[in-house]
Amino acid sequence: MAKEKKPLLLLTNDDGVHASGLISIMEAVRPLGEVVVVAPDTHRSGMSGAITAFSPIRASLLKKEEGLTIYSCTGTPVDCVKLALNKLLDRQPDMLISGINHGSNAAICIIYSGTIGATFEGCVNGIPSLGISLTDHSPNADFSQAVLYGKQVVEKVLEEGLPEGICLNLNIPDIPDVKGLKICSQTKGYWTKEFMDMKDPVGRTVYWLTGEFLNQEPDNKSSDEWALEQGYAALVPLKMDMTDYAFLEKIKRWGTEI
Amino acid sequence: MAKEKKPLLLLTNDDGVHASGLISIMEAVRPLGEVVVVAPDTHRSGMSGAITAFSPIRASLLKKEEGLTIYSCTGTPVDCVKLALNKLLDRQPDMLISGINHGSNAAICIIYSGTIGATFEGCVNGIPSLGISLTDHSPNADFSQAVLYGKQVVEKVLEEGLPEGICLNLNIPDIPDVKGLKICSQTKGYWTKEFMDMKDPVGRTVYWLTGEFLNQEPDNKSSDEWALEQGYAALVPLKMDMTDYAFLEKIKRWGTEI
Repeated sequence: MAKEKKPLLLLTNDDGVHASGLISIMEAVRPLGEVVVVAPDTHRSGMSGAITAFSPIRASLLKKEEGLTIYSCTGTPVDCVKLALNKLLDRQPDMLISGINHGSNAAICIIYSGTIGATFEGCVNGIPSLGISLTDHSPNADFSQAVLYGKQVVEKVLEEGLPEGICLNLNIPDIPDVKGLKICSQTKGYWTKEFMDMKDPVGRTVYWLTGEFLNQEPDNKSSDEWALEQGYAALVPLKMDMTDYAFLEKIKRWGTEI
Repeated sequence: MAKEKKPLLLLTNDDGVHASGLISIMEAVRPLGEVVVVAPDTHRSGMSGAITAFSPIRASLLKKEEGLTIYSCTGTPVDCVKLALNKLLDRQPDMLISGINHGSNAAICIIYSGTIGATFEGCVNGIPSLGISLTDHSPNADFSQAVLYGKQVVEKVLEEGLPEGICLNLNIPDIPDVKGLKICSQTKGYWTKEFMDMKDPVGRTVYWLTGEFLNQEPDNKSSDEWALEQGYAALVPLKMDMTDYAFLEKIKRWGTEI
């Protein structure tokens, strides 16, 4: 009987192939299977689900050793996943892991995040996919708790799988002793006060993105922001079908009215 | 009694401020209210919900006349919406219109599209928001049918509003006589054969994005791809809360198991 192949784990991120968040989870999951990293050659934060349509992209093989292959790619996080699936891998991965991101991707940040853009891309392609983020932006953040929880969720997904069209968004608070894991909903909220005005060297106004998150449901104990504030890791299942079926029924009459 | 203000319509797109799709819908909706355009200075297709975090952006006032103001912006479509709401507008818009995009944004294209990224951004900020796309990529596409349907949906939204957290994605087929409007769900599917390999001038491999859409539910007569193929305009209500609540319940036990 042929030896069963080890699970193939595709890793990517949006902080770039050399980011310590990626390296931390890469080392942690190596015992679980064959690891292939395809990650941007530099930071690509805030790239959401962006794709590179108007210019070609490149990939460079940085490392190939027993059980671990690392490529850097000049594209976005989504480009990295697409290139891996279409050109670099010889079989479909058993799981995609995106992260560990330097910084939170809870609540509405999922629509801006390159980490989550890559997670969606794996999911759309039928791969059980997990985005992992730590609520600390610093390059030298302590990823030990994020790795601990991240690896356990990876093991759970490898054991149990995920339904088609659903992926997972895991955020871990930046504290030494995370209290446990909560399964949560995406917090309702949005960003405010989003730009700092400044002057360029010749006195023209420019705008630099900043902002404060406004939580519209601070008392919702099922939400991911609440869990993080309380010191828990927050895991949110996200679905790729964004159709609102209830509202669809309500506006069906527009089909005859327009 | 103070004169009631006309509705304020914020327009953006991802093909750039000079694209004919944007100009077509701008002219069509001018009679409906005060129009402010804040759109990218050049094409920003495939930018999804990307934001510009690591450099400042600029805005230029291109036109200001009775009922119409046009700015170009160096950022992404989402940056344009954020800048409009935070810095350029003096009141909250009554509606955001993104497009008309040159090319379809049906099915899973919503996760890559800058047009839809901007639509989501309006929605997250509490503004009734509509993305409009024509299934023709050419710069000189005939937008007459798209304008006809687009304007009617705009009027409907101005009359009836939209629930919080729900926006609309309208696609119009590129045919002279669109058969009518169908209210649809987001078609399940994904892109395949996504890269063309080629050699750069010094013989190194580069990859250029292309692809074929694989429709996973070609017989679903409620889906947007089906409606478009049959010659109908397709309107899909999309919700910003991507949580899968059913699956959330199923994995709640992970909270104690991990």
